[in-house]
Amino acid sequence: MQDKPLILVTNDDGIRAPGLRALIKVMNQIGEVVVVAPNSPQSAKGHSITAHNVLTCTPVNIDDGPQLEYTCSGTPADCVKIAVNEILNKKPDLCVSGINHGTNSSISVVYSGTMGAAIEAGIQEIPAIGFSLLDFELHADFRPSEEYVKKISLNALQNGIPEGIVLNVNIPNLQTEEIKGVKICRQANARWKENYDKRTSPFGKKYYWFFGEVVLKDKGKDTDLYALENGYVSVVPVQFDMTAHHMIQKLNSWEL
Amino acid sequence: MQDKPLILVTNDDGIRAPGLRALIKVMNQIGEVVVVAPNSPQSAKGHSITAHNVLTCTPVNIDDGPQLEYTCSGTPADCVKIAVNEILNKKPDLCVSGINHGTNSSISVVYSGTMGAAIEAGIQEIPAIGFSLLDFELHADFRPSEEYVKKISLNALQNGIPEGIVLNVNIPNLQTEEIKGVKICRQANARWKENYDKRTSPFGKKYYWFFGEVVLKDKGKDTDLYALENGYVSVVPVQFDMTAHHMIQKLNSWEL
Repeated sequence: MQDKPLILVTNDDGIRAPGLRALIKVMNQIGEVVVVAPNSPQSAKGHSITAHNVLTCTPVNIDDGPQLEYTCSGTPADCVKIAVNEILNKKPDLCVSGINHGTNSSISVVYSGTMGAAIEAGIQEIPAIGFSLLDFELHADFRPSEEYVKKISLNALQNGIPEGIVLNVNIPNLQTEEIKGVKICRQANARWKENYDKRTSPFGKKYYWFFGEVVLKDKGKDTDLYALENGYVSVVPVQFDMTAHHMIQKLNSWEL
Repeated sequence: MQDKPLILVTNDDGIRAPGLRALIKVMNQIGEVVVVAPNSPQSAKGHSITAHNVLTCTPVNIDDGPQLEYTCSGTPADCVKIAVNEILNKKPDLCVSGINHGTNSSISVVYSGTMGAAIEAGIQEIPAIGFSLLDFELHADFRPSEEYVKKISLNALQNGIPEGIVLNVNIPNLQTEEIKGVKICRQANARWKENYDKRTSPFGKKYYWFFGEVVLKDKGKDTDLYALENGYVSVVPVQFDMTAHHMIQKLNSWEL
């Protein structure tokens, strides 16, 4: 690649999130960076898009870096769509989303706004990676992540990512010297078990807060959850052909 | 099954949508029905959930049918979570979502609130089916769909659906006698191509409406889009292990 690669950066925690700032910093070392990120937090928005309402997308200047930045009123997937169609004048060489404050391992991939953006980029035939650091705090320390974000992004630019696949990268919340390396993994079989905290409003109406915990149903040592628990950065290749191809034969025996 | 099966019904077009009413009518012929559906339209919400806000879930009586009904302030996936955890006192035998007013074929599965609910039920280990009729009109004619909705649901109850898989059923917008039957399909390789209509608000701010069209990249005759175009009901088995297992070997050659 003779020119610097064009890199689209987005996230789900919003344009001012420290995780996005950390990601921009690393990407400025690699290529020409354009940021299109939500103007409000979009956690757990999955692959939601703004179908029946208007969108805004406005230039902003947050940290005086060399990157161009825009903030969009929509979801992470909206940011990618509007970036590709209205902001960028050529297809980016890479789209990176994150660094998410929290986990997108195992089943969280389906709820994740971070991964919603990466998958949208994949659908648009752009090599794409979602990054998450397993620390939900606003002021998480993203410095240990930077080396891995850079290495994985450079590999993606050099080797390419086949069409139909994006990468889901999760980074354990550890100090640099404690991280043991990178493991290529499959998505662990797990689900969120919800607990509901029932309350009554001052006006007598019942409402719920929910909070969940991951229930692991998978004893494999090749999963993302196993890698993360053992101090490794997990990389899961994610596909958006969701067909369960092995089920087609069985369904053809149904009386339809 | 000696007792009548317990069937959870939800959708993404909201509790008053004619497509939901049609689905309830069919399910009342099969089992004991509990409805937990959004109180507002949730199209294109994907697998979005309400992570940092409160939820309400309130009994309602819409059409004096035998079913129990609740309306929830959240997304389709929220409806399934709150139904399973707070409304139902046992796990349902089946969860059906729809009948969606519109298409959820090919790549639309990732944006679909209807399928977000079905997939959430699948994650909760409940056999689940999302139904869509390819007619975006509020007053679509759901009668030709009813026979297929019933037949596929009865097959699912009788044969079971393996853990980790849910069904995505799309029904062409045709008269009963024009529908040729049912085809088991894979998800077509297609994407939405967006067009943006740029406008200026009375206050001088630029905003966008977007509208899309499907770009088909798949010449296969085993796809859902091909089946629908040729007058068949399409049934795609959908999995939520999104790992691209065939990419793991390749990624293990990267310099990480």
